[in-house]
Amino acid sequence: MNLLIECGTIITATKKGVMRNSAIAIEDDKIVEVGKISTLRPRYRRSEKINARNKVVLPGLINTHHHAAMSLLRGYADDLDLKTWLEKRIWPIEKHMTGSDIYAGALLTAIESIMGGTTTVNTMYHFTSQYNEAQAFAKAGLRGVVGHVCFSWRKKHDRKALQALTRRWHGQKNGLIRASVDPHAPYTVDPDYMKELRAYTHELSAKYASPEMPVIWHTHVAETLDEQEKIEQAFKISAKGGVVAYLDTLNVLRSNIVAAHCVHLTKRDIQILKEKKLKVAHSPISNLKLASGVSPVPQLLKEGVTVGLGTDSSCSNNSSDMFEVMKVTALLHKGISGDPTELSAEQVLRMATIDGAKTLSWDKEIGSIEAGKKADLAIVDFRKPHLRPVYNEQSHIVYAAKSSDVDTVIINGKVVMENREIKTVNVDRTMAQVEKTKRNLLERAK
Amino acid sequence: MNLLIECGTIITATKKGVMRNSAIAIEDDKIVEVGKISTLRPRYRRSEKINARNKVVLPGLINTHHHAAMSLLRGYADDLDLKTWLEKRIWPIEKHMTGSDIYAGALLTAIESIMGGTTTVNTMYHFTSQYNEAQAFAKAGLRGVVGHVCFSWRKKHDRKALQALTRRWHGQKNGLIRASVDPHAPYTVDPDYMKELRAYTHELSAKYASPEMPVIWHTHVAETLDEQEKIEQAFKISAKGGVVAYLDTLNVLRSNIVAAHCVHLTKRDIQILKEKKLKVAHSPISNLKLASGVSPVPQLLKEGVTVGLGTDSSCSNNSSDMFEVMKVTALLHKGISGDPTELSAEQVLRMATIDGAKTLSWDKEIGSIEAGKKADLAIVDFRKPHLRPVYNEQSHIVYAAKSSDVDTVIINGKVVMENREIKTVNVDRTMAQVEKTKRNLLERAK
Repeated sequence: MNLLIECGTIITATKKGVMRNSAIAIEDDKIVEVGKISTLRPRYRRSEKINARNKVVLPGLINTHHHAAMSLLRGYADDLDLKTWLEKRIWPIEKHMTGSDIYAGALLTAIESIMGGTTTVNTMYHFTSQYNEAQAFAKAGLRGVVGHVCFSWRKKHDRKALQALTRRWHGQKNGLIRASVDPHAPYTVDPDYMKELRAYTHELSAKYASPEMPVIWHTHVAETLDEQEKIEQAFKISAKGGVVAYLDTLNVLRSNIVAAHCVHLTKRDIQILKEKKLKVAHSPISNLKLASGVSPVPQLLKEGVTVGLGTDSSCSNNSSDMFEVMKVTALLHKGISGDPTELSAEQVLRMATIDGAKTLSWDKEIGSIEAGKKADLAIVDFRKPHLRPVYNEQSHIVYAAKSSDVDTVIINGKVVMENREIKTVNVDRTMAQVEKTKRNLLERAK
Repeated sequence: MNLLIECGTIITATKKGVMRNSAIAIEDDKIVEVGKISTLRPRYRRSEKINARNKVVLPGLINTHHHAAMSLLRGYADDLDLKTWLEKRIWPIEKHMTGSDIYAGALLTAIESIMGGTTTVNTMYHFTSQYNEAQAFAKAGLRGVVGHVCFSWRKKHDRKALQALTRRWHGQKNGLIRASVDPHAPYTVDPDYMKELRAYTHELSAKYASPEMPVIWHTHVAETLDEQEKIEQAFKISAKGGVVAYLDTLNVLRSNIVAAHCVHLTKRDIQILKEKKLKVAHSPISNLKLASGVSPVPQLLKEGVTVGLGTDSSCSNNSSDMFEVMKVTALLHKGISGDPTELSAEQVLRMATIDGAKTLSWDKEIGSIEAGKKADLAIVDFRKPHLRPVYNEQSHIVYAAKSSDVDTVIINGKVVMENREIKTVNVDRTMAQVEKTKRNLLERAK
């Protein structure tokens, strides 16, 4: 379908910055032209029109760290110490989760993400062939990197799951879905297995990927203070130089790794992140809720490290709301550093869009509004009391707007939400299904 | 009007905790009974019904620190150091604000507050007789404590304004509006003036107030690290023991003082807050945005100090959203303390309701859902993907719900918003008026 969106304001996330009274021309899944309404209107006379003249149009937001299936457990356990939370609450119930539970949770996340202007989600969970997160994202029309999480204790299973995931989903659904290899963490994946996964990723890439469409890694790194200790205890290896430095000794680090959290870093760690061009998925809400700490984001940015933003799962957040993550990111690093000029609204918006795309090694196709990119857009309605008056649209997006202000979302050129109505999935039926799935899960876990 | 609200879940903010399948009977401005639907339905047959059986009903949220008029400057200046922000941006434009600008900004805040489930706002600004914040709140049907901010440089003016404010508004509009005396801060109000204001408050109270309806103080305390220094520079007096300790030497501290911020406190300060039963208005979003720091809230709570929550103004937040403040409060103190059990959802909900009422010395009338209290309620619609599934409603209110999930609001027994439609004010006209007011203000400030 060809579309012409006539916009009041476009936040391009390119060097052009903010454009006013401009239009975006879309053909099939791509943006073909961005320019003055008066220029584009005669040129795309036959395109279907979307009137966004009182609205603000952004690149779809990119959530670089999530476990989509876990929305099924939203609010199941909060305000507990990490050990009790994981060992007594989360892990025991997760044991009972089936493929169809994973699908239900991921579909809920997909709907919630789209309703909040998020068009791409990077998710790490257990891949099962019959029902899985990729299927849920494809159903909802959400773009995603879907991984399979790997642990030392199930190498054989992981190998099969990774093969099935990559063969079946990588680059599928008109390029909407990509697969990733997800070593859980440096303390749950032993050194040999980590190296094996690197080799296996090369194998899978040779078969199913291309340089434009890489199979990336998505892994937790330096989330908690005791991670070096955990590595030392698990593998009898020193990790004194830092968690990233330890991983570097294994020769597994590449530029297309999404390192989630990076809260507790040594100086050496930061240097390696920079040199090896790793990407960081900053998840401040989760880091606060689990009391993990605060990632040194201003320092990472000064070193030139690419930092994207993520919600983390709905067990540690408890929502998939990137507007909240933007606001908390802008606030937190001012408060912690004592410098109110740190992380401006504009910079945070870049982190949630183009830098998020770079974080997922997907910036050739998404993350900004410019000709040649995929048409992934969020249209925000500013006719709300809490968005009045308007002095600066970028400030409003970060500091005043809410996910509920997003009224229309386009992914891969397709309108997946219009006037807050999801076009791809029956939302009421999904909510009912989720409640039923929850009840059955609790029943099984008794 | 008599109302019977049939509720799925009531979060009472009393010792009864959460009640299910219960109803709230309202007569005129008061809650007269709370109990099982099956018991109350025959008893209140003639009351108008509100069906909230799929919804969650809370006490209206209480915003204990705001400058309502400043919503007119929302997003006018961000991401600047405090000195530039205040001296180059905020103060120069505020100089040009007229009474009708103040009214327009406060009306916008009132609408935004109601739409986010907030039923009481404590606001500090300049009182002008012709147009003012009290008038705006009364128009919107919002409950509020409206103050006049006092500075050493305008003692005579302040005295007149306080007299006019208290006489005209204290206890008016069926008890919806109360007046307060607002010494700006310990470094802008000299010691003699501070004492004078205490004496003058007694005078005003004798004339216009009662023990049930006190004229409280609302003041900034220990917001920034350099406040002791500022006091010393301004008045050549040592404030080494702490800002609260300094105020105590003036013999002006009473239990009905709202001390906003309390970020930088000495041990002695905390002891005095406790002994003198001062109330703290915690405004974490503002404290982060302006890089002021983080208030030691867990310690204050352990000492038994009453802590309410506030947004602060839309220049330093930039919204009047108490749902955001609840979530940030629950997150921040976990992250800062390193203890994920600090400030549970339940505790934060109390801070936003009954403890907020205590903070404003108004808890005899508001802050909880029980017979005898004024009917101030927020009804939250849980039929949303981001609020599914439901394990724990209190967790969802703090960690997952948004202000936009509030669908009906009752203040003083009156339905002021129904299905997100404001009943008291024309919202579109107000938004248009706000934009016009902004344009005129910028024109005058040129």
